[in-house]
Amino acid sequence: MLKDLPLAKVYQFIEPGPVVLLTTQAAKEKPDVMAMSWHMMLEFEPPLIACVVSADNHSFKALRKYRECVIAIPPAELAETVTGIGNCTGADTDKFGVYELTPLPAKHVAAPLIGEAIVNLECKVRDTRMVNAYNLFVVECVQAWQNPKLKDARTIHHHGYGDFAVDGEMIHIKSKMR
Amino acid sequence: MLKDLPLAKVYQFIEPGPVVLLTTQAAKEKPDVMAMSWHMMLEFEPPLIACVVSADNHSFKALRKYRECVIAIPPAELAETVTGIGNCTGADTDKFGVYELTPLPAKHVAAPLIGEAIVNLECKVRDTRMVNAYNLFVVECVQAWQNPKLKDARTIHHHGYGDFAVDGEMIHIKSKMR
Repeated sequence: MLKDLPLAKVYQFIEPGPVVLLTTQAAKEKPDVMAMSWHMMLEFEPPLIACVVSADNHSFKALRKYRECVIAIPPAELAETVTGIGNCTGADTDKFGVYELTPLPAKHVAAPLIGEAIVNLECKVRDTRMVNAYNLFVVECVQAWQNPKLKDARTIHHHGYGDFAVDGEMIHIKSKMR
Repeated sequence: MLKDLPLAKVYQFIEPGPVVLLTTQAAKEKPDVMAMSWHMMLEFEPPLIACVVSADNHSFKALRKYRECVIAIPPAELAETVTGIGNCTGADTDKFGVYELTPLPAKHVAAPLIGEAIVNLECKVRDTRMVNAYNLFVVECVQAWQNPKLKDARTIHHHGYGDFAVDGEMIHIKSKMR
């Protein structure tokens, strides 16, 4: 169902700044998922991504302990789901169950892929030196998946307080820049 | 002409992930400007922004030495200008001159504001510990400006190789999240 996405193309999905979902899996717990908007590329290949996961967040502990996660990019149609996920905590909510997301087994990490996502990135934590100062994790994408059914799906960008911009027109300007 | 933007609102412009311009000013040189897409929020207030400025970039030296910059968010109408800026170097090009951008004096930094930008953020470098590993600078926005004429302007998001998504529809979903 999901198709392999070359690692060299991962930045093309993160660089535009969409809201993403981050899944984690702690032992003996149900998988957890949080909404995230503070992330950026750090390196093209292997793809390194910096992301801020608040220490208040239930996902923080699993990410720090198991050092694995999946970053999934939801289509605009899931905006309500994304907001709902951002407004409750995995400490007392089975978010995959409540929000009817389909957890799929990943190849290299215990955290689940999300069946409804445009793209899923299996990630390993590579650097935790900035966690104490900024809650900033550096993760490496070791495997990426694309959902062929969602090839033309639009993403959403958070402007604060539940305001989202949906991707509009695509324009192309001749460029030498990667 | 430019209006004060409360610092508490800065994240609402960076979090959505638009392409930005970064200006610097080195002594005895013309001001320089580069295009940037690898940036994210690190803290709401005071607003801390993480950004990756390649060591190959002419702006890198000025940023490291003078520890000041302006992050400016261009409207979609400037997409060609942004791409042009990204495809040449300040080492041999007076980019403000060539691309007809209006440099305006900032209040707290030597780097210029850009008259044509939606928002201008005057920034001071606060942390260079990740520069060697990732070319990552942590900057603090000390003053922010909004262009009242561009209140409804749309931003652009880079998907690689000159492909940009322009902001489309805005949607609102009730949320407790900042």
